[in-house]
Amino acid sequence: MFFADRVQDIKPFRVMEVLSRARELEAQGRDIVHMEVGEPDFVTAEPIVEAGKKALTEGMTHYTQAVGMPALREAIAAHYQHQYGLDIDPRRIIVTPGASGALLLIAALLINPGDGMLMTDPGYPCNRHFLRLVEGEGQLVPVTAADHYQLSAAKAAEYWQPNTVGALVASPANPTGEILSLEELAKLYKEVQGRGGYLVVDEIYHGLTYGERAHSILEVADDAFVINSFSKYFGMTGWRVGWLVAPEAAISELEKLAQNLFISVSTVAQYAALAAFNAQSREIFEQRKTIFCQRRDFLLPRLRELGFDIPHTPAGAFYLYANINRFSDDSQAFCLEMLERHGIAITPGVDFGAYQSDQHVRFAYTTSMQQLEKSIEVMTKALSYG
Amino acid sequence: MFFADRVQDIKPFRVMEVLSRARELEAQGRDIVHMEVGEPDFVTAEPIVEAGKKALTEGMTHYTQAVGMPALREAIAAHYQHQYGLDIDPRRIIVTPGASGALLLIAALLINPGDGMLMTDPGYPCNRHFLRLVEGEGQLVPVTAADHYQLSAAKAAEYWQPNTVGALVASPANPTGEILSLEELAKLYKEVQGRGGYLVVDEIYHGLTYGERAHSILEVADDAFVINSFSKYFGMTGWRVGWLVAPEAAISELEKLAQNLFISVSTVAQYAALAAFNAQSREIFEQRKTIFCQRRDFLLPRLRELGFDIPHTPAGAFYLYANINRFSDDSQAFCLEMLERHGIAITPGVDFGAYQSDQHVRFAYTTSMQQLEKSIEVMTKALSYG
Repeated sequence: MFFADRVQDIKPFRVMEVLSRARELEAQGRDIVHMEVGEPDFVTAEPIVEAGKKALTEGMTHYTQAVGMPALREAIAAHYQHQYGLDIDPRRIIVTPGASGALLLIAALLINPGDGMLMTDPGYPCNRHFLRLVEGEGQLVPVTAADHYQLSAAKAAEYWQPNTVGALVASPANPTGEILSLEELAKLYKEVQGRGGYLVVDEIYHGLTYGERAHSILEVADDAFVINSFSKYFGMTGWRVGWLVAPEAAISELEKLAQNLFISVSTVAQYAALAAFNAQSREIFEQRKTIFCQRRDFLLPRLRELGFDIPHTPAGAFYLYANINRFSDDSQAFCLEMLERHGIAITPGVDFGAYQSDQHVRFAYTTSMQQLEKSIEVMTKALSYG
Repeated sequence: MFFADRVQDIKPFRVMEVLSRARELEAQGRDIVHMEVGEPDFVTAEPIVEAGKKALTEGMTHYTQAVGMPALREAIAAHYQHQYGLDIDPRRIIVTPGASGALLLIAALLINPGDGMLMTDPGYPCNRHFLRLVEGEGQLVPVTAADHYQLSAAKAAEYWQPNTVGALVASPANPTGEILSLEELAKLYKEVQGRGGYLVVDEIYHGLTYGERAHSILEVADDAFVINSFSKYFGMTGWRVGWLVAPEAAISELEKLAQNLFISVSTVAQYAALAAFNAQSREIFEQRKTIFCQRRDFLLPRLRELGFDIPHTPAGAFYLYANINRFSDDSQAFCLEMLERHGIAITPGVDFGAYQSDQHVRFAYTTSMQQLEKSIEVMTKALSYG
């Protein structure tokens, strides 16, 4: 069979293969420490689960509006008021099937064939695949630990090409956990806007920052696009509900696209998500955030002691992106050996781009402190014999 | 702001605007008969709702495999065995976020820029928009009541163009409720396959046929694509869960696309859908099917008496596609007047294509018999003064 050309350019998510192999080993009776998956280990907070069950009991099983229930759009707008002091018109908020749905809308709305969008390498791999889907391209900008793995205004200027129509950044970022300061966001916006481009900021890890606060691009500009999600801070991965904040001028076009591409977003997930903004849920999220912070503060110094190179302490998300050149120049082989011989599941850098990806791995601290302690024990032995 | 060219070609779903206006009128105190929405009026069957609640209670809130939980893929395979006597490898079944997700995967997999796919006019409007998304085109084949609004092998041959890579048909179809017989499916497959094309069959209304049985293209060929859904017969619209049956050779490519485009499908919806195959659920679906059949058998002759032209009795779905040339040559104006003056919400033909769309409207019998009776009373008065 012959498939469309784009299929060749879209890469599998390696982390899913790592997970799959890890599960096989577990089925054979092996103990595995899961540090591969970008998903909180906690189940969804009780008040959200109860709200979902209540909606089901009340028969909320029909389609909603394509762009989301008005009550949820209003609740998200209130969240911007509460968390950022921002006054966002609920009409600018489009509820989507996960942040994935928001990325699809952005690609459909902004990208003509041959258009490109700047994004960091390393970065979330699906970003460039959404552009490829609609015959655009992710224009990868190599970033290093010295850049805190973020796209600066200067690098945006340096890598801007005639076919570039914008930049897509994430703060906090996957796989690095690094954030952009308000000043960096403002400079980047100015650079992109000055070139007539669009700035899209993935803010799905907002809320999960330790010490520092992550600023929203909406604090800088009304005509940027924000991608967000209930998956990470709000702990609702499996429900598949996210959102997009769009400029006023894009609302009606996005509504049209959402009608055609999704019909609507899971109704039970939307009712459940409404409960994510109550005080009880917020308390649970903040407790979990404290736990993530403790894990980071445990794992980071120990990985450094072992010889992993992580020059800067990332402020957010639940990832550490580590240089392994002390141990290997082939991160895929390194990850395979860690999994097969030592039962430690981590993700090779190649999942996140091409630039120095052979020398990097991603640790996700989405498992218990006990498991993290165990991983350090095991790696201490493994790497001293390495 | 400047948006991608495709946005100009993607049309809003008019039915959603009709619905929106109908809701406004209701908010003003008007009584509206809803015959516009392509969604069963019943809430999801109790055993499915209970299974969803149980999954939530048990903490099933994380991501699943991108292509769906193995248990659900196996249950769908068993459904093909049970309903069609077909032996389908569960690996060929990809669980998707609604049939919309399946359409996205199909478009991503099969369509290069400039490629076209034959589809009927009238037909489900989003089909051509999914192709437009990836820079392909829906090649609309005008079909009439004499064709039962379906694509025949002869018409496929007649309309095939150098850039045509396949055909996408629906049986039963939206907006007409018409089905393709096994013989017609076999002939169409032979024609398409002989031209090196792909045949994609939307079978989302399977189960909702009255008297006749709808055959699956999988009874004809292993290398066709099937789109299906838990929304219609299984009554799970708001849950957003569907599936794709793909040829063996496409499995790994589709998995890669699903990982990137969706991450995964709603976990609670997947657990709930598992309960759609038990005997208790089946009994509820069959009762509801009987009710839909009674509604069709009530509505169709009365619409004909009123002067709507519906030459052939459609065997499936919950739609009647009626020629209104006795009353008007502008179906949008007709629908607007029916709604504003008479409180009857129906969908203008323009939602489903261009061919004779000004002379057609769609009635959805997704409301109670009492409401249908009322609609006939109201229309009897309205149209005799018309």
